[in-house]
Amino acid sequence: MMKEPVYVGIDLGGTTFTIGLVRPNGELVASGNYETFIASGHESIIDRMAQETIKMWEREGYSRDDILEVGIGSPGPLDLKTGTVITTPNLKWVNVPLRDMMAERLKLPVTIDNDAVSATFGEFWVGAGKPYNDVIGITLGTGVGGGIILGGRIHHGAQDIAGHVGHMVIQMDGRQCGCGNRGCLEAYASATGIVASTAEALMNDRPSLLRTVTRLTSKRVYEAAVKGDEVALEIFDRTGFYLAVGINSLLNVINPEAVILMGAVANAGDFLLNPIKQCLKKMCFPRIYEETRILRGTLGEPAGVIGAAGFAKFR
Amino acid sequence: MMKEPVYVGIDLGGTTFTIGLVRPNGELVASGNYETFIASGHESIIDRMAQETIKMWEREGYSRDDILEVGIGSPGPLDLKTGTVITTPNLKWVNVPLRDMMAERLKLPVTIDNDAVSATFGEFWVGAGKPYNDVIGITLGTGVGGGIILGGRIHHGAQDIAGHVGHMVIQMDGRQCGCGNRGCLEAYASATGIVASTAEALMNDRPSLLRTVTRLTSKRVYEAAVKGDEVALEIFDRTGFYLAVGINSLLNVINPEAVILMGAVANAGDFLLNPIKQCLKKMCFPRIYEETRILRGTLGEPAGVIGAAGFAKFR
Repeated sequence: MMKEPVYVGIDLGGTTFTIGLVRPNGELVASGNYETFIASGHESIIDRMAQETIKMWEREGYSRDDILEVGIGSPGPLDLKTGTVITTPNLKWVNVPLRDMMAERLKLPVTIDNDAVSATFGEFWVGAGKPYNDVIGITLGTGVGGGIILGGRIHHGAQDIAGHVGHMVIQMDGRQCGCGNRGCLEAYASATGIVASTAEALMNDRPSLLRTVTRLTSKRVYEAAVKGDEVALEIFDRTGFYLAVGINSLLNVINPEAVILMGAVANAGDFLLNPIKQCLKKMCFPRIYEETRILRGTLGEPAGVIGAAGFAKFR
Repeated sequence: MMKEPVYVGIDLGGTTFTIGLVRPNGELVASGNYETFIASGHESIIDRMAQETIKMWEREGYSRDDILEVGIGSPGPLDLKTGTVITTPNLKWVNVPLRDMMAERLKLPVTIDNDAVSATFGEFWVGAGKPYNDVIGITLGTGVGGGIILGGRIHHGAQDIAGHVGHMVIQMDGRQCGCGNRGCLEAYASATGIVASTAEALMNDRPSLLRTVTRLTSKRVYEAAVKGDEVALEIFDRTGFYLAVGINSLLNVINPEAVILMGAVANAGDFLLNPIKQCLKKMCFPRIYEETRILRGTLGEPAGVIGAAGFAKFR
């Protein structure tokens, strides 16, 4: 039986990579999650990505002829002209020709792009950003990443690094960021930033459920907030303020139709969205506040895989 | 004698407006500068802009048939669809249909855009930005404005406010800005910001030529820097750092080919450009630092008039 052809989307991360088969309408047919094993090196990782991709399409009853193209969202910075991962702190890769290595193994056309760009593109294509043409996506996880869609197309910039919203500075003499600079949005609004804010807040004597937690994570802070813990609630208010400062700068500079929050930290939902909106109401021109949509992604984890399939389709 | 037709460019400011006749190749044929007299109200100002425009083309030997189109760079925010100045603190206008009022008076097609966008477009068209397609312009004057050109076209955004780089926040708990927020780039890197930095620096006991100045302005700080005054030199170093923080955020988010500094404060030249470049060298990915051009505008004051004529041409 002839099957409707599908795209392959791959979301490559430092801990796991995810492979998905995606219909031309953006529907996810199948997906699987696999350990990256960074220490095994890029050849072995790329071999396994290719093998698992082939296994997946065979398991789902597809042959190579049923696969249209392959998209990969990868940590960067990347060189999109050559399809190369220039360097990534996460994977410890340097100048890895990811696109061509995968194309050779799969014997299929491969497109690569930044991982946060692929999640943004997924939400733009079939998720929260579907009604809009000009969208900024912000991924809130261990770090803070982002992607920019203008006029329905990914804005890559002169050296393919556009969208690194996590390294906008919101406090020039502020917290040390992993990138070497001070005061980046990432140092405040990532899971790591939330843990740092919580540790600061616990330095005084206020009671909090978080004092009894053995290993502080942003998830523990969220759980404490759900139970009404005042310190935890205050942390989300402050994190919302930090994000509002960054988002307000983006609205003033790029003026998109919508900003979409994704990633694990965005699962805090209204604990984060409410303070962001309250702060933006004070910060923005009224018309901008009223007309710009601040949204949570609707695709969840698969956003990256769907987006990678999508940019393979729309490249 | 039939003359080669020209565009009219108008740069509308709170103190003066400038009118220029511009050849289709961007060459300025004639220009004049006139007091705005804000208190006279928008009807009177627009009447005088139209009268002076007609006087200028007549004086230069043109008739209405020799004028192609008219472009106006105006303070904003603007609504470009309706050609309206929504509100401007500078001119104290509210909902003024500038485009249509001028078109009616001149009986010519009129296009309006933001004043900092028009200066950026001038530099992009025939000035420092000519070799590039993706350019961010920053105007450093009483305030800090900006414009964004992507793929050779002005990026306006969803509500036509894109490019307001002066209201990117670089220090979220920092100096009060005129917009109501704290820590905007404008509060640090404008002429007003330089005066504030200088006043702060003079609070200690260090000797400085600036102590004898009756009315502190950014121009006086520049003159003192030229004479080697250490406080003045330090102010430009710090202002360069502030600008580098903002520019680095723009490079991470938009990743343009070039950033062009314009306006009176940019006349400080290397006093400002050198610290900006030194700071960016420390802040940026090495490849971004090496490949992104940080330039001064080459057109000077007429950038706005030339750019306004230019966006009338390329609209």
